[in-house]
Amino acid sequence: MKRVIFLVTLVLQIFVMRAATVNIDRIEPACWYAGMKNPVLQLMVYGKNIASYDVTIDYPGVKVDSLVRLDSPNYLLVYLDVAGAQPGKMTIDFSGKKIKYELKRREMSGEKRIGFTNADVLYMLMPDRFASAVSPTKKMRGRIIPMKTEYVVDRTQPSLRHGGNLEGIRQHLDYFTELGVTALWFTPVLENDSPDNNGKSTYHGYATTDYYKVDPRFGTNEEYRRLIDEAHSKGLKVVMDMIFNHCGYDHPWVADMPSKDWFNKPEWLAAVKGGEAPDVAASKNGDYLQTSYKLTPVLDPYASKVDMSETVDGWFVPTMPDLNQRNGHLMKYLIQNSMWWIETVGIDGIRMDTYPYAYAEAMAGWMKEINSEYPNFNVVGEIWVTEPAYTAAWQRDSKVAKINSNLKTVMDFSFFEKINMAKNEETDAWWNGLNRIYNSFVYDYLYPNPSGVMAFIENHDTDRFLGDGHDSTALKQALALLLTVNRTPQLYYGTEIMMNGTKAVTDGNVRKDFPGGFDGDSHNAFTPEGRTKQENAMFNWISRLLHWRQGNDVVVKGKQTQFIPFNGVYVIARTYNGRTVMTVLNGTRKPAVMTVRRYAEIIGDAAKVKDVLTGRYYDLSADVRLRPRQTLVLEW
Amino acid sequence: MKRVIFLVTLVLQIFVMRAATVNIDRIEPACWYAGMKNPVLQLMVYGKNIASYDVTIDYPGVKVDSLVRLDSPNYLLVYLDVAGAQPGKMTIDFSGKKIKYELKRREMSGEKRIGFTNADVLYMLMPDRFASAVSPTKKMRGRIIPMKTEYVVDRTQPSLRHGGNLEGIRQHLDYFTELGVTALWFTPVLENDSPDNNGKSTYHGYATTDYYKVDPRFGTNEEYRRLIDEAHSKGLKVVMDMIFNHCGYDHPWVADMPSKDWFNKPEWLAAVKGGEAPDVAASKNGDYLQTSYKLTPVLDPYASKVDMSETVDGWFVPTMPDLNQRNGHLMKYLIQNSMWWIETVGIDGIRMDTYPYAYAEAMAGWMKEINSEYPNFNVVGEIWVTEPAYTAAWQRDSKVAKINSNLKTVMDFSFFEKINMAKNEETDAWWNGLNRIYNSFVYDYLYPNPSGVMAFIENHDTDRFLGDGHDSTALKQALALLLTVNRTPQLYYGTEIMMNGTKAVTDGNVRKDFPGGFDGDSHNAFTPEGRTKQENAMFNWISRLLHWRQGNDVVVKGKQTQFIPFNGVYVIARTYNGRTVMTVLNGTRKPAVMTVRRYAEIIGDAAKVKDVLTGRYYDLSADVRLRPRQTLVLEW
Repeated sequence: MKRVIFLVTLVLQIFVMRAATVNIDRIEPACWYAGMKNPVLQLMVYGKNIASYDVTIDYPGVKVDSLVRLDSPNYLLVYLDVAGAQPGKMTIDFSGKKIKYELKRREMSGEKRIGFTNADVLYMLMPDRFASAVSPTKKMRGRIIPMKTEYVVDRTQPSLRHGGNLEGIRQHLDYFTELGVTALWFTPVLENDSPDNNGKSTYHGYATTDYYKVDPRFGTNEEYRRLIDEAHSKGLKVVMDMIFNHCGYDHPWVADMPSKDWFNKPEWLAAVKGGEAPDVAASKNGDYLQTSYKLTPVLDPYASKVDMSETVDGWFVPTMPDLNQRNGHLMKYLIQNSMWWIETVGIDGIRMDTYPYAYAEAMAGWMKEINSEYPNFNVVGEIWVTEPAYTAAWQRDSKVAKINSNLKTVMDFSFFEKINMAKNEETDAWWNGLNRIYNSFVYDYLYPNPSGVMAFIENHDTDRFLGDGHDSTALKQALALLLTVNRTPQLYYGTEIMMNGTKAVTDGNVRKDFPGGFDGDSHNAFTPEGRTKQENAMFNWISRLLHWRQGNDVVVKGKQTQFIPFNGVYVIARTYNGRTVMTVLNGTRKPAVMTVRRYAEIIGDAAKVKDVLTGRYYDLSADVRLRPRQTLVLEW
Repeated sequence: MKRVIFLVTLVLQIFVMRAATVNIDRIEPACWYAGMKNPVLQLMVYGKNIASYDVTIDYPGVKVDSLVRLDSPNYLLVYLDVAGAQPGKMTIDFSGKKIKYELKRREMSGEKRIGFTNADVLYMLMPDRFASAVSPTKKMRGRIIPMKTEYVVDRTQPSLRHGGNLEGIRQHLDYFTELGVTALWFTPVLENDSPDNNGKSTYHGYATTDYYKVDPRFGTNEEYRRLIDEAHSKGLKVVMDMIFNHCGYDHPWVADMPSKDWFNKPEWLAAVKGGEAPDVAASKNGDYLQTSYKLTPVLDPYASKVDMSETVDGWFVPTMPDLNQRNGHLMKYLIQNSMWWIETVGIDGIRMDTYPYAYAEAMAGWMKEINSEYPNFNVVGEIWVTEPAYTAAWQRDSKVAKINSNLKTVMDFSFFEKINMAKNEETDAWWNGLNRIYNSFVYDYLYPNPSGVMAFIENHDTDRFLGDGHDSTALKQALALLLTVNRTPQLYYGTEIMMNGTKAVTDGNVRKDFPGGFDGDSHNAFTPEGRTKQENAMFNWISRLLHWRQGNDVVVKGKQTQFIPFNGVYVIARTYNGRTVMTVLNGTRKPAVMTVRRYAEIIGDAAKVKDVLTGRYYDLSADVRLRPRQTLVLEW
């Protein structure tokens, strides 16, 4: 307990009136919003022996529904019914100690929160690696209690922090609009105040130690809000990365577990509590349960309990305690947390990490609540299995899933895998090259909504599409496809300037700093002048395509027709209201011919058509000769 | 037309009263059955200028519903309403020419026709290659008009006829019961009176030239019936192989096409009519359309018309005219044909060839009619795609298929593919060896009824599981799995005596003669005395398992639980009413240990359990050591 008392965060928006005997270290959420559909508000109150106190509230429309005392005496869950309450500040009386608590006025109804859709193109970036700038609220930092972990910025070390922050992103918002993307997905921005295995601070963000606070090294909640406001003003949406499967091992819940079932395999917490990196090998008594990383049991109708438990209850890594979503109080906490961020900073979407590792029914409940309050919002789940039959079962209203996930968008690891295999192959045999893409899209009948499937060719957890090379030809094919097919496309920062790298050495090799984002960078890829010739060529190529895609109903709403690769050429077309977009890919390293007659059902009597990529016109009254790996996006 | 007149078959069950001007060569079906649910009976009448005549019938409960005249004057479709008719012989008057036609009494109601289920084990054989015997109805052969194609029997040639027949099968029915299978599937037995490409008669049976007649080289319709009757008396079901996608190129429909849309791509029939093997290469004008053999367009939500047409309208081979199932008259003909064989010879199931190559909606209609008349019958479709997501969409009541196929049983090419890959691999990496099987069964959630999926490890179109080798260890693993999992298992003749062979040289190499089935065979594998020691060992091994499986509710109805392969060992269990069967496979070529504790949820406190394969008892209070590739089928 001692450590908790030292580490607690002052919740700035609450005015704490000190009373002699009642310790209240924190109340979460720090504020709430009046007029939510679900009238039940859970307040998680942290404080030494807080569970022994009583709670009364005198505020119109608010009543204490129940007080829930968990296994630890240092937490109290106050469930309020706020169905009829107007915005304003109420006083919560903890056996004499009075706390002000605010129900804020919502800026808009839940229906008006419009999430990202397939009309958007998401741009994913890692805040630590994108750009650094002096925080405008830097002075405020002094009021934040010192962090536990050393904040080492060392750009020579791929696994240490490089110093990027939200203000750095904000100062480059015009870069995104210039590029032509319409939504930004940042890897997690919440506080990660646990050292990683080498004792230095982590940079990746997937080990949350405070679900309600932006990591001070990235900025403040207010800076996050400002960034999102400005992004909105420029037509950019923002997607927040969240992790419900696990938290960081210096989250206060770890040192003082609210209830015995707050975490899966809590026996291991004893080792974690030491504050040092736990020694799994020393866990001879089997306290530690590593997840198998095998996601199949979750859907397997024949799954054994032992396999299911390893997948769902096993820890992702020994330093990230695995939250037990079967605990309804925890889930209520997490559901409110999502809503709080939507209301407080105005995010337009959520990307949920390691989706199937969490307890599926609880996650479905979370989604149901979010969808109910924000029917037009969107959430994408990371479901890293390369079988469409698997990921499709996780999309909302799947007809083959045991439970309805209620999750609108899933990530398309099948497309990712196949486009990365195809790039190294000739499209000749039925299973090779772009035939893989053809054969992957075939299974779209399994998806309730293929448009809502988020496709990508690389991300922070994979090799760069370019590998360690620099050949843009296959990259352009992959991007032309990604941006014209029936999917919600997602890019990864730096693709537009041909950033490369593989994970063979270290993850940091695919998470390099964006050139020009940091003090002293001699190379600045944010401007045409700063970019190399090669970078400008790629930037301009994709920027043209991205701007063309904006508001393009043919790509967004068009009927899709694909053709089995023929003589090495893969053709996939979209048609809408008499307009046509036809993506043509020579899937070989040899010249090829697009046999125009074969595509008559799409081409009709179109003759002179424009290639969106070059502006050049092609004559479809004769066969079209294609250079090796050439890509056309024809439009008429 | 001349050729048709020479070739027509006298329909024996019809008494034809000759009239001067009306030529009736054939009426199909030759008889029908009173009391079918569907009251509409189609008679297809063949005869020169038959379409110009009128039809009247005076029989209680029978009325002429309509006469349909097709493009050719030499066919007349007489649609009768026989709703109220009792069994008996009616007279059909064709403008004065009177024909007797019989409505027979059904032997049992449609509900009483019980098809094969997962309680059965099917044994597939090729009649030409199994056994030969002198036909008891040989004398009758003289009354069958001479066949067009030379009947060359040459057992030295893998692609020619070897002389096996139905009587040969009948004389060995005890062999099947001794072995322990419960159902027989013969490759097609109907007349194939087209020469194949070398001008000699075909043996495989997939080029039907008469849908109502057993091939005289195999026997007669009566012999087929006798074989089935005797099989039934021994507890053996019989499954008939049918082909609706195409027929043989000497079917009378080819020389005189009933209607212009009777076949797909009828332009090519001009070449076929010559009677010689058509020269595809000479088809410069594109008359010939070869199927792509790519089945994905049929389910692809984005399929182009050209791809779909190549799959469905393209011919399987240039010598097998592709029937157009979109023609409702043709489908009615084929539906009646199925029912006629069920009623006439008493088959217990149908295996439908090349299922997705036919027009899906029409095939669904066929199945709907069969299911309506014979709700407990069973049909298995050959759907040769190795993705569970594909085959599952073809099973009745699939939730993801565009149309409901109404097909109860589909073949499991995924299992076939994966078990044949696994046999050559170590079970170590997540995607290797028996992990493939695990990962294939996971997708059973896509199947409306996994028990109704027919699994196999080899058939007449694939390499033998043994390849060109003789190692029974992996074979026993595959068979133990096949016979204990939640599937309808199918064996291929000769597996039980370790017949081997690959298709590398010729298809005939996986369709070798069963030893002892033919005159002069020095080696007779039908008897223990005739079998080699090695053959007896395998025969006895599988026979024990097959007899154990008969009536075994645990295997047939048991809940299935599978475990992710652990230390190379794959465990899959069935439990039912307190009884357990646990199949344990060491998927490596090294000794392995089955860690008993891991399977506690199945094992409970069971200690001394019996291995069905050896009768040996194992003690589950300690870990079990397994030899390389060892298989256990534990029972308690």
